[in-house]
Formats: sequence, structure tokens, C-alpha cells
Amino acid sequence: MEQVRVGMVGYKFMGKAHSNAYRATPMFFPNTAKPVMQAICGRDPQGLEQARSQFGWLSSETDWRNLVARDDIDLIDINAPSDAHKEIALAAAAAGKHIFCEKPLALTLEDSREMLAAAEEAGITHMVGFNYRFAPAVKLAKKLIEEGRLGKIYHFRAWFLQDWIIDPSFPLVWRLQKEIAGSGSHGDLGAHLIDLGRHLVGEFAEVIGMSETFVKQRPLPSAMTGLSAKGDLNAPLGDVTVDDATLFMTRFANGALGSFEATRFATGHRCTNAFEINGSKGSVKFDFERLNELQVYFTDDAEDVQGFRRVLATDAAHAYMDAWWPAGHTIGYEHTFTHEVVELMDAIKEGRQPVPNFVDGVKCQEVLEAVERSVAERRWVSISEMA
Amino acid sequence: MEQVRVGMVGYKFMGKAHSNAYRATPMFFPNTAKPVMQAICGRDPQGLEQARSQFGWLSSETDWRNLVARDDIDLIDINAPSDAHKEIALAAAAAGKHIFCEKPLALTLEDSREMLAAAEEAGITHMVGFNYRFAPAVKLAKKLIEEGRLGKIYHFRAWFLQDWIIDPSFPLVWRLQKEIAGSGSHGDLGAHLIDLGRHLVGEFAEVIGMSETFVKQRPLPSAMTGLSAKGDLNAPLGDVTVDDATLFMTRFANGALGSFEATRFATGHRCTNAFEINGSKGSVKFDFERLNELQVYFTDDAEDVQGFRRVLATDAAHAYMDAWWPAGHTIGYEHTFTHEVVELMDAIKEGRQPVPNFVDGVKCQEVLEAVERSVAERRWVSISEMA
Amino acid sequence: MEQVRVGMVGYKFMGKAHSNAYRATPMFFPNTAKPVMQAICGRDPQGLEQARSQFGWLSSETDWRNLVARDDIDLIDINAPSDAHKEIALAAAAAGKHIFCEKPLALTLEDSREMLAAAEEAGITHMVGFNYRFAPAVKLAKKLIEEGRLGKIYHFRAWFLQDWIIDPSFPLVWRLQKEIAGSGSHGDLGAHLIDLGRHLVGEFAEVIGMSETFVKQRPLPSAMTGLSAKGDLNAPLGDVTVDDATLFMTRFANGALGSFEATRFATGHRCTNAFEINGSKGSVKFDFERLNELQVYFTDDAEDVQGFRRVLATDAAHAYMDAWWPAGHTIGYEHTFTHEVVELMDAIKEGRQPVPNFVDGVKCQEVLEAVERSVAERRWVSISEMA
Amino acid sequence: MEQVRVGMVGYKFMGKAHSNAYRATPMFFPNTAKPVMQAICGRDPQGLEQARSQFGWLSSETDWRNLVARDDIDLIDINAPSDAHKEIALAAAAAGKHIFCEKPLALTLEDSREMLAAAEEAGITHMVGFNYRFAPAVKLAKKLIEEGRLGKIYHFRAWFLQDWIIDPSFPLVWRLQKEIAGSGSHGDLGAHLIDLGRHLVGEFAEVIGMSETFVKQRPLPSAMTGLSAKGDLNAPLGDVTVDDATLFMTRFANGALGSFEATRFATGHRCTNAFEINGSKGSVKFDFERLNELQVYFTDDAEDVQGFRRVLATDAAHAYMDAWWPAGHTIGYEHTFTHEVVELMDAIKEGRQPVPNFVDGVKCQEVLEAVERSVAERRWVSISEMA
Repeated sequence: MEQVRVGMVGYKFMGKAHSNAYRATPMFFPNTAKPVMQAICGRDPQGLEQARSQFGWLSSETDWRNLVARDDIDLIDINAPSDAHKEIALAAAAAGKHIFCEKPLALTLEDSREMLAAAEEAGITHMVGFNYRFAPAVKLAKKLIEEGRLGKIYHFRAWFLQDWIIDPSFPLVWRLQKEIAGSGSHGDLGAHLIDLGRHLVGEFAEVIGMSETFVKQRPLPSAMTGLSAKGDLNAPLGDVTVDDATLFMTRFANGALGSFEATRFATGHRCTNAFEINGSKGSVKFDFERLNELQVYFTDDAEDVQGFRRVLATDAAHAYMDAWWPAGHTIGYEHTFTHEVVELMDAIKEGRQPVPNFVDGVKCQEVLEAVERSVAERRWVSISEMA
Repeated sequence: MEQVRVGMVGYKFMGKAHSNAYRATPMFFPNTAKPVMQAICGRDPQGLEQARSQFGWLSSETDWRNLVARDDIDLIDINAPSDAHKEIALAAAAAGKHIFCEKPLALTLEDSREMLAAAEEAGITHMVGFNYRFAPAVKLAKKLIEEGRLGKIYHFRAWFLQDWIIDPSFPLVWRLQKEIAGSGSHGDLGAHLIDLGRHLVGEFAEVIGMSETFVKQRPLPSAMTGLSAKGDLNAPLGDVTVDDATLFMTRFANGALGSFEATRFATGHRCTNAFEINGSKGSVKFDFERLNELQVYFTDDAEDVQGFRRVLATDAAHAYMDAWWPAGHTIGYEHTFTHEVVELMDAIKEGRQPVPNFVDGVKCQEVLEAVERSVAERRWVSISEMA
Repeated sequence: MEQVRVGMVGYKFMGKAHSNAYRATPMFFPNTAKPVMQAICGRDPQGLEQARSQFGWLSSETDWRNLVARDDIDLIDINAPSDAHKEIALAAAAAGKHIFCEKPLALTLEDSREMLAAAEEAGITHMVGFNYRFAPAVKLAKKLIEEGRLGKIYHFRAWFLQDWIIDPSFPLVWRLQKEIAGSGSHGDLGAHLIDLGRHLVGEFAEVIGMSETFVKQRPLPSAMTGLSAKGDLNAPLGDVTVDDATLFMTRFANGALGSFEATRFATGHRCTNAFEINGSKGSVKFDFERLNELQVYFTDDAEDVQGFRRVLATDAAHAYMDAWWPAGHTIGYEHTFTHEVVELMDAIKEGRQPVPNFVDGVKCQEVLEAVERSVAERRWVSISEMA
Repeated sequence: MEQVRVGMVGYKFMGKAHSNAYRATPMFFPNTAKPVMQAICGRDPQGLEQARSQFGWLSSETDWRNLVARDDIDLIDINAPSDAHKEIALAAAAAGKHIFCEKPLALTLEDSREMLAAAEEAGITHMVGFNYRFAPAVKLAKKLIEEGRLGKIYHFRAWFLQDWIIDPSFPLVWRLQKEIAGSGSHGDLGAHLIDLGRHLVGEFAEVIGMSETFVKQRPLPSAMTGLSAKGDLNAPLGDVTVDDATLFMTRFANGALGSFEATRFATGHRCTNAFEINGSKGSVKFDFERLNELQVYFTDDAEDVQGFRRVLATDAAHAYMDAWWPAGHTIGYEHTFTHEVVELMDAIKEGRQPVPNFVDGVKCQEVLEAVERSVAERRWVSISEMA
């Protein structure tokens, strides 16, 4: 299969990022299967048509059921709000379509398991959108760990800090409503950290968390909007039903200790998605706001020149980078999606499951929900309880 | 004119960067004129066809004369090696085509003036590819200066540091041959610094420079190659005829002092294109390796909290950024070209000259050549001498 | 009282730091009471005499009881290993001496309370050695919070990362033995973080922690040594009885969330004692390895130049700095002790209690012990339980 | 000689820094000769007595001639304003005293040569105060170069940026008057850079400079003051007779290229004394505002983890550091003077000349004056012209 015909549900922030990735793939990675931007799907015809035209999709559908039913679609890309993931995915699997679903996979662990089961039963290819794995600097961290260059891992600490809702007048958008978003900072930001923790360190054994909603009511928005909406404190208010911040600690199965913090109230941080890993032979540090860089330390460096190296992961020695520009020429946020699509296209071409896939989506959900349980019950929760 | 049909000469590093910009423009900046990727031109049919297909051009030409003669082309994009710029530009102007020419505009000041004269006589739109002006962080620096927020400018110091030829076995590629490249680090890297200096501080009054070729002979390459070729010291050697490093000092017309350094022998620097500006009311610092950031200092900050701010220029308040992703989501090197194309498309749509254009190309060449004269004659050279 | 005659128990790492502070105070802070270095006390006569001579003490004692009994001593400085604090402090208080005691105040909360009660009953001046409060950059953080310039505090995250025992052959020094040190990373490093959290954000309401000893046995040292000893894995091994790492989360009484991590297994970190505070109007970041700097962010900066400012806290506007060098000339670790001594001398001169004093020592111990209980019992522990 | 009895001329900024170094030496470096603070000398009896008492000198003199004549003085420390250096040094040499003289050695090259000749004729020990050589991070840079770990040196770029006179109302203090200070930023700041260049890269071959006085008149101060004075623009004005900024380029004898900038108009820079060195095998970067750090890059690092390492030069492997605190505990500006005094005491004890000494002072002056000539005559000046 040299072409993969894509039908995409969703056309806002994530829809734009995915569209860009589909456009970039054949130009920069011509050796993988080519994604064909067959159809885009959304409910509002006017906004949909604008997105279709602007992003370059060949056709559109206003009902995702029609999209799923189309014969000329191989892959369903689901990036609509989280509450819609499950139903679409089940239908897509039933129709034998491959699925690329944004994270979090579903609103609940149970739903995500149902999605995985359906995908496995249908024998389709399935992927979940943990795009940060695909930053070349993160790939380098993974490589160093796999090659044993950091030794035994002792610590993982990670924090995803944003500040876009710190103004109390910011409106009650869908991401602040539990019934649509599932959770707040936890599922939106923490999910990425959990996935990185699993990817880099291994499975979680047990967790304990704490959570807070600092601003408990916000103005109702006139319409469902994106991240940049502005509100009015004199407008009618509604309850914020998700967490503004969730912190938790974990013990990994391999004995490493983990510390996690996801918050939308970290003033001054637009999008600090950062982690550090300490091992017996070395350490790495990453910060998404400088996504081309990985800080790397080795204990076996000569004793007078030990220190964290700022590796600019733009050399040919770094994953994906020979496809882009000469060394020293950085890439941006959107490129993580392109690399993600390359993995998906490669997997479809090679007849294997891409990584991360729905299994990773479910395992992330297990940890998310274990944390939620630990918050609610104020106790340590073992991941095995979630089985 | 809602569409601009482009014919592009060159398909290597710059051809790829320009192609990407043409592809990105209609998706992210749908309100400007749309560049249509009509034809790509190069001498090697096989490599050309691969580029055409991969980059998404509708057709191709192996002789730029044919390209220039085509009726279905509005704009000629010249990113072939520097020695080819002039002839193509003159023909394009004669044919009434708009021109987008990579820097340096020509091998000599005289040639660049001839190109400007031809463009002005033909009444066409002309642009020169100083893409770094279009980083949002650089745009912010420009804005702060224009609004007087840095006060009177005292200092500009700039350095463009690379290390890709520090290995003596790196071969004698075209960029190391004077007859093709014009000069080495000076025209390749220094030209960008000069343009930024002119853009941000103003015109140069006088200069004095020094230059060095550290590795004077290198292996002959079997074929003309890009930046990443590897050589063999046992191969026949040829003379390096350009500078490995050129430094110079300047006095700007407004009294500011400038310091410039361009080198390909700065070990550890893949692509440090950096500058700092000090004014009576504030300062800014920029480094291309962290291109989304501008360091900003103001003297009127409260006395206990004075310090350089790391501004992540990804907010809606920053140029171009509302077209991309939410705040905190960085962009990469290639986006500077997209913004450049947006300026070009806007200018064509609005019937005005874009900035920077051939006038800027000529003025940059004046400084480049004044520096070369100052190196050769070991004396201060006034820019007015170049008239 | 223009002079304070000091008798100091301990002459290793802390004894050296305190001695230096006593020497520096009259030169750089001539307006406070002058500490007179009357007598130094230790058990090993040879090492003691060398320290006395080198540090500049006027006399020495090998039995702290004799020291406490001397008429020519006003203040007892206790920086012997932690298990000795209580007995000496009680005797000193009984003798009516002022006390300056290193942290942690005692091995147990109960002991620390006994010390506080004794000090209060005796009516003496008492201080506890949380020296990091006295870095000018930390003073600036405190000032910004007190003046309301950060608004309501939402988050405090702090980590004290070291790597000096990551080598399994590092010997079983006293800091790794519970009966002498009380605890490991928790009491040594975590205590500082807790004090900074209390100082900057406020009292703790409840905590939950986790703890680990990664290397469970180590070579027995031939003698009690300091931080830099080297061991031999073939030597007889003994059990490490303290924690290598302790993490915990907290809810502050004012509603802020806190995250803490103290570890001696953070490879690559010699002494990263760092915290960040996020408030509704601004944020600050501090890292002891760059102790002269505070990163400061304000939400009310102009929207195009928002970013963390790197404030070099060496201006006259910063606490203590006009006593040292001109702006831009940094100070080091040891200066925090000098400032601490200045506070102590000022307090004695002015007849008030210095800050931090034994009350702070006890409150820190409450949190330390609450965390230990939460680790042991795997549950949230309220600080009120410790009453 | 186990003791060196010091007589010091000057008691302001430098006098304070030197006094602190004499106090610290016996405590932290007990194995070298002990400096005895015998006598301090200044013209104003009141200020002098305060300094004597505060800094801990045993006696004082108001006439340096008396100081030089005293039998109980072994070493004359000269840190009075630059115009006084020569006369005192000649008298001290004639009296057979060792000399420790602040930089710049003298107001003119000729004077400095006279001082060197006198010192050599008298057979005394002589040292010049280029204290930045003694930062452990700079020592590390020197070691890496000497051990060949950076390979052949191609580039040295250095800048000393301050902003303390950027306010036009700052008064006309002695440092702004040519007859007392010799020059402005050039001799004050540039001298340090030149010395570091000589120390790290080697002798200069030729130079060309440029210079500017941005604020040409300033309020007359009521009294000679230090760095922190405040002025009044309505006061009578006087001419600034020194440079506010001096830039120059150099070719070193070994072929390396150098770029230098010294300015007091770099807004936002309190004291950025920074350099970078690029060699064929590695690079180093230093910034005095983070004086405990050296950035180090090696070309032979594994290709996927190449990057500048931030070496915190506080380990036992770093010069002087085992005398201070455990790894990770930073030192401050003043310690560079302590290390300088240690070198001086060692040299006197060992009967050798310390480094840097008057020879280095003269060679620095040669470059300073060559730059001044190049500015005046607007041409390249060979250092050999200065012979």
C-alpha cells in the first residue's frame, strides 16, 4: 500500500496540526506511504468548508457516519473533542478502517478498553496521538536509555505547565467541562507526561495524586471555542468541572520514583512540557519550549569536564533530522506530528502496529484513572487495581 | 491578482526551503495571494524530476531560459548558486517577471546594481531572500526599536558561527570556490548579519575588516554537493579560494558601533546566528538556535527586578504567530521562509515592493564589498567610496 | 551589646562555614554587633587545634560541657552532627547562653520541641541555620511575595538534587546512619525546602510522601568523614539506614499546592537547590547553583514582552548587596552564612528573636516527621496530627 | 619566609577586595605564606581609619612615602587610582619591597616599562592584578588549552560589557578623567580581556581599534567617588576625556583571530566579562556573571551527544576548589583575589616570580597603547611597533 486515504474528524487546533503533517509527509519523507487527504469531517458546514479549502482536503462530510461509510477511505483520523472519540472509533473499526486517534483515547478507562478490543478484533492498524514522543530530542533520550547509556533509572520528574486560563475571566470552554473533556490539566497535559514516563522509564506500579480547581466558576462562552477565547466576568457564570492542576507521585515497576505535575496555573509558562531522568550512569533533561535541545550528562566524562551538555538534536545523527534541514536549523512543534504520521504510514506500509497505539492509550488511561481514584479516595492506588 | 504562478530555478537546500514556504502559505496565510508552484528548473533531469515530484511542482524545465520565456509564470524564484543569479535575473526582468532572488544578490556590487537597475526599469516586483528578518523574535526587536522602546542605539554586535567545514577532509564544494560563491563565510553568513544590522540599526558609514582561510587546500569533490558531503584527504587537493572567517567593525551613520563576525570554524556552533543591540533605554539579544526567543531588557523596569526577559515570541501579540499554533508552541527555521513568501505575496497583491528588495540586496553588497576592500587594503573604507 | 562572644561546637564543613561568617561580619557589616571568635570545641585535639588556628578562634575546648560553662561565652553555635544538638542546646539554654543551631534542629520532633521550650524558658536568643533564606535572590522572592507582586500563590515546587553518593562504593559516612543523622536526603536537603516553603508560601496543612534507599549497603568507613570520602566495595559493608530520596506533596494552609523532592541520586546535580512559585500576578524561579539570580515573571508586563526576567540580585536594590561589591559582582555560597550571622547579631543587639529561630526549627520538624509518618503509613498526614 | 608583611596603598573598592583576600588566605590556604595586614595607607585620615578598623589592618599611614620607608613591610600593595601607580612602585622597588600592583600597571606603556625595569633591577617579586585569571573556570580553560584538548586555536572573542554610566546624569568621577584613569572602558575593562587573550591564546601580532565617547559632558562630582555615585544634570558639566567604548580586532602571533569589545554602555549588563575560544578540537565559553561555570565542547564526543557542557567548576578536580566547599557550592567574585594572593604568597615563599607579573602588565600595556594608536591613526598597528 503506497497510499493511505485519510478521512479526518475534527478541524480545529488538532485538525490543523494533523493536516499539516499529512501535507508535509510526502515532501520530506517520500519513502513512506503517502497520506491522501481524502475527506475532512465536521458539523458546521461553513467552518468545515473553510478548513477543507485552507488545509487542502479533497472533500468533506458533515456527518462522521458518512465518512466512516465511504469506500475511498482507509484511515479515520479522530481529533474531535474527547467525548466523541469512542463512538467514532468503534464505528471505524467495525468498518475496517485504520484509526489514528488523538489523546486521551477516551473519557474513561472502560471506554478506551472497549476501543482497543474493537480495534484488535477488527484487525486494523491503530495509533494514539502522543506526539511528543516524536521530537528528535525525546527520541535521543529514548535511544540513550535503550542503549544503557544512562544506566539504571532512579528518577523521573515531569511537569507540564501552562497559564492560558489564569485569568478568571477566561470563559468556560469545552476543555473546562468534564462531560466533554473528561478531565482538565490531568487528561490534557498529564496524559502526555504519563505517556513519556511509560515510554522512557517503564510501567507504573502505584500512584497517589492531588488535584485542585483554583477558579471554580467562569463566564459561559457564547460558543464553543478554542484556546484563545476571551471572556467577560459580567456574563453568566458556569461551574468549572475539571481540575486546574493535578500532581501525583509514582513508583515505577522497575523501582524508579516519579513526580508529575500538570497545571494550567503556572504563570509565565505558555507550554513548558518538561522532564528529567536520572540514572546511575547519566541524566537527561528536556523542555518542549526548547524542543530541539536535550541536556545530557554522563558520569564517565573526564572528571574536570563533567556537566550537562546542551545537545542540539538537529544533526544527521538525530532521528528524522536528515529529512529536514542542515545541522543547527531547528524544527517546530508541528514537526512532531509529521514524524508521528511517518510512523503511522510506515506501520501501515509494513503491516505492523505503530507505536504508540491503542495499547498505550489504554495504559495511559489506567494511570490517569488510578490517579483520579487516588485523589478521590486519598490513598495510594496500585495500577493493578485498574485491571 | 489572487494567484502568483511561480517558476523556481534551483532545487537543493534553498529550493527545498522555498518549496515548503509556497506549500505552507495558502494553508496558514489564506488571506494573501496564493503561490502556484508552476514549474521547477534545474540542469540534471533526474534530480530535477525527483525534486519536482517530492516538492509538488506542476512541471519542470531543464533550461532556465525556457522557464523565463513561459507565459504561465508570474514570478521567477532564483536560488541557484550565486554565480547564476545575475543572468537569470536580467532575463526575468526583461521578460517582465517578478523576481524573488536568494542572497547574496550577486557575486559583485556592480552586478547587483545592474540587477536592481534592470528590475526598476522593468517595473517588476523584486525581493531578496534575507529570511532571518522574518523570525517573529526579530520582528519584535524591530518593533521595539521603531517604537523607541530601546531608545538611542549605541551598540550592535553580531556573529554567525558555524562549524561544518572544521574537518580538513571536508571537500572543496562550490561554497568554497570564489568563482561560484563570490566569497565564503562573508557572503554566506556575514551578508545576513549586515542585512540585520541595516534593518535594525540603520545604514553603515564605514568599515574595517579582517579575513582568514584556515584550511587552504581541501579534497576535490567528485561532484558538486551540498553542506553535508564527506571528503577524503588522500584525494587530489584543490585551493580554497574563499574566506573561512571574516570579522569587521563598523560605525553606523547614526553613531552606533558595530562588531561583526562570520566564521565556519566556530567549533560547537552548528548555526549560531546571533546579535545583541544596546540602546539608551533597553537592549535585545537574539540567537537563531533558539529562534522563538528574544531576550529583552528595559532600563525603566523597577530597580529590584531589572533583568533580561526571555520572551517566547509565540503569543498572538507577536508577528505571524496567530496563524500558527497556540502560545508556547514553537516554530522552526523553515517558517522564516514562509513569512518571507507572505510578504512577497502581499506585496504583489497590493502592488508595492516587498521588503527587503533589490535595494537592500545592493546595499548589503556595498557593505560586503567595502569590507573586502578594507581587508585587501588594510584600511577603513567608507561606504560612500562604493558609490 | 556591641560584641557577642561565640563558642562553637563542630569544626568540619559547617564549622568552617560558620567561622568564615564570623570573620566576614565585622568587615562587611560593621554596624551590627561584632562576633568574637572566643572558643571552638571538638573531641579530637589534633584536628581541633588545626581548625582553631586556621579558622582564627582564640581558644578551644574538647568537651562541650566546659565550653557551655565558660563565663566568657555569650552564644553557643552548634554545628556538630545532628544527634548531638539537643543535649548541647539544653545545657546551653540552662546556662543562659544564646544559641545558634544548625538544621535540622534535632533528630525528632519531640526533641526539637524540648529544645524550643528550654530556650523560651531560659529567655535566650535562638536561631536555626536555614541559610538559604539569606541568599539575596531568595530575599527578593520573599519581598515580591510580601508586597503582593506575585498575587495569590497557586504553586510551589521545589527540589534539592545532589549526586555525591551515587557511586555504590561511597562509604557509609555518618550522614547515612539514622542514629546520627536522623534521616538522609529528607532531613539534610528536604528540611531546607520545607523551610523555604514555609518562609515563602506559608504553613503546610497536610502531606503525603514516598521514600527510597537505592543502595542498601555500603562500605564501612575507617573513620567518620565528610562529604568527599572515597570507599572500597571490598571492605566490609554496613546497612544504609536513611533515605536516598524522599518526595512529597503538600497542600498549604492557604490553598497552594506544593511538590517536593530531595535526593542524593540525581546524577549530574552537584547541588541543585531550586524552587519555583507561581502566583496569580507573577512567578519566580531560583536555583542555588546560580544563587545570584532570580527569574521573575509578571502578568502585567506589556503583552509583547512578557517573559521571565533573569534578575542578577547584585544591585544596591537587593538585600545585603551594598555591603559587598559593585553591581554585577557575584557572591558565593558562604555569603548566605554571613547574612545569617548578621541577622543573629542584629537580633541580639536589638533584643529580639532572629528569624528563623527554634520555632521555625520545630515547625520544619513537624513537616519532616509528618512526611515520615505518611511514608510509613502510606496515607495523607495532616500537620495538625503532629500537635 | 612564612609571613609576608603587607603595606597597602588604597582603601576603596580594590582595597576592600585585597583586604578580604589577605584575610581569607590563611584560613582557606594555610599552606602558603601568611599575609600579615601590617599597614593601610590613604590620604583622608577619617576614611582611612574607618577602613583600617573595618578591614582589620594593624596600622595606617597617610603618606605612602612613610609606608614604603617602614622596615616592618615586605610587600607594597598598590591599588590607588592608576595615576599614582608608577611613583609608588618605583619607590617601593628602590626600597626593596615586593610589589603587588593593580591593573592597568600605569597610565602609559613607557611608565609601565620603567616600573618593570625598576622591579627587575631591584630583584623584587612583582605581580599585577589580573584577577580574572584566577577564577577556577578560567583556570580550567587554560588547562584544557595547555593539554591540547581544544586543539589549534582559531578564534578568541571577548567582550566586557557594563552599564553603570549609561545615565547621562552620572557624574564625572575619576574613572572618566584621562589624566587620572589613563583611559576609560579600554584600560579598565579591555585590559582584562587583553590579559585573558594573552594568557589563553598567546601574544598579539597586530591590532586595529575604534573608540567612542557617547556622552561627552557630565556633571562635576562634589568629591571623588566610586562606582555608585549619583549626579545632577543641573550641576556644572565637565568634559569626559576617556572612551565609553573601545572595540578592536587582532591577529594573534599563532594565527588565531581575535575580537574585543569593552563598553560601559551595554544596557542590561552589570558586569558581563565574557569570552569564547574555538579550537580545532573543542571550544570553551566563559561569562563572569556566572563565574563558576565553563561551557566546554569537544569534537570527539559521540556524534549523537555533541554539545556544550555546562561544567560547574566547583569539583575537587578544579583549581583551588578543594580549599573551599563541597562540590556544587559556588564561590563569588572576591575569591578571584584570594587565589591571586595565594599565587603571590606561593611565589614569595618559593622565591620565584608570580604570574601574572609586571612583564604581563607591560605586554598588556603594549596592546592597549597599540589599540589607542590604531584608533588615533585609523590603521592597523603591529605590536612590534611598540618596541
